[in-house]
Amino acid sequence: MRNLLLRLMYDGTSYHGWQVQPNDITVQEELQNAIEKILGVRENVTGCSRTDSGVHANDFCCNIRTENEIECYKLTGALNAVLPDSISVKSCEEVSADFHSRYDCRRKQYLYRIWNSTSKNPFLKDYAYHYKKKIDAVFLNEQARQFVGTYDFSAFCASGSSVEDTTRTIYSFSVERHGDEVDFLVDGNGFLYNMVRIMVGTLIEISENRIEKDTIEGIILSKDRSNAGRTAPACGLYLNKVTYEEG
Amino acid sequence: MRNLLLRLMYDGTSYHGWQVQPNDITVQEELQNAIEKILGVRENVTGCSRTDSGVHANDFCCNIRTENEIECYKLTGALNAVLPDSISVKSCEEVSADFHSRYDCRRKQYLYRIWNSTSKNPFLKDYAYHYKKKIDAVFLNEQARQFVGTYDFSAFCASGSSVEDTTRTIYSFSVERHGDEVDFLVDGNGFLYNMVRIMVGTLIEISENRIEKDTIEGIILSKDRSNAGRTAPACGLYLNKVTYEEG
Repeated sequence: MRNLLLRLMYDGTSYHGWQVQPNDITVQEELQNAIEKILGVRENVTGCSRTDSGVHANDFCCNIRTENEIECYKLTGALNAVLPDSISVKSCEEVSADFHSRYDCRRKQYLYRIWNSTSKNPFLKDYAYHYKKKIDAVFLNEQARQFVGTYDFSAFCASGSSVEDTTRTIYSFSVERHGDEVDFLVDGNGFLYNMVRIMVGTLIEISENRIEKDTIEGIILSKDRSNAGRTAPACGLYLNKVTYEEG
Repeated sequence: MRNLLLRLMYDGTSYHGWQVQPNDITVQEELQNAIEKILGVRENVTGCSRTDSGVHANDFCCNIRTENEIECYKLTGALNAVLPDSISVKSCEEVSADFHSRYDCRRKQYLYRIWNSTSKNPFLKDYAYHYKKKIDAVFLNEQARQFVGTYDFSAFCASGSSVEDTTRTIYSFSVERHGDEVDFLVDGNGFLYNMVRIMVGTLIEISENRIEKDTIEGIILSKDRSNAGRTAPACGLYLNKVTYEEG
């Protein structure tokens, strides 16, 4: 039995996230359909995380177990030929039999894009959150540093999530302006449900003076979701990089 | 009677170009619908050029004549509120009564984007031409310089065009690689029908050795469309900047 690691890029606009769902189209389902077309068998695909409706991926990892002997570059080409244009397979490589794209993940990076202008940007309508009030990116970059560290992040987890261990380590969190775009880049060993979108929403509320500056650590320690800010919209969020054990 | 200059940005993917047409949705029609909603009168809008189906604009200019006294910034906001998300009004300013957005245009810049990778990019499927064979951008940048100058460009005009004077001046033409993207940027005092797309298609054929290098001037002087290359797809083309008399 071979175990293959696929790296994908996808435009999540028209999908109900990654994970297969009864009545909605998802990325996993499209991929499984494509694999079935190419390999003749409906192999199960294990994803590195669940992404929400409308969330995008510059780098999403998944692995499939198959007995098929197709060469990796051929599978990549064949999948790209049958997948919708909104999903691309960037690479395929053979990995060890026990590799698991979710459990073996060591580090993830998320990007959150804000189009920060009074004017709409037609090219970013599904690809960035349009937020009109001017953001001071240098100030938010300083504030965001308070997220770095190992904490119980339950204040930054959507209510209703049933995960047991809510401790995560954030390695870095930067906020940078590029013209009218403000990019939030966060690296961690894992993320709770909606965690990045709530962290970004909290920074936005600090920018609005709805949440006091320099209170992020206190909000974390309170473990109370109601102290954190709102959940920023899905369309600005990208799973940007997924890292496994260093070669 | 006031004369207002509007600068637009639009995603041309789902439009049959700028100009109103009997059975298709166009940007001009959407704009006239929006103006009618705001001002209560269907004012005619004069565009700086016709763009084709699927062509985009980072900067498209048009002017409208109206007796309405609405302030420019209010009109901008009101139009953006009723226009589809694929069209944005960037600015509105009052200009002299005789200003004409097409006749008074001194300079236009077009951008042509190629996604130059064997992998698809889901985020650029409607926003760049996906061309897989590796492009040597430094080489094409040298070749593109041959377009600079004042010439009869009829070899680079779609057949069937009925324009009388086919002489145009190209001020600059550069080709630059940014990662997996190759950008073609051309500045001129005006462009014939499909001219940029044929110039880009010719450069691509030079890159493919289908057209010999250093022959662009000869192709121009031949005035024969059949000597030039194919017409590159619409989705990569952006009207990027429109310039009127210097302030």
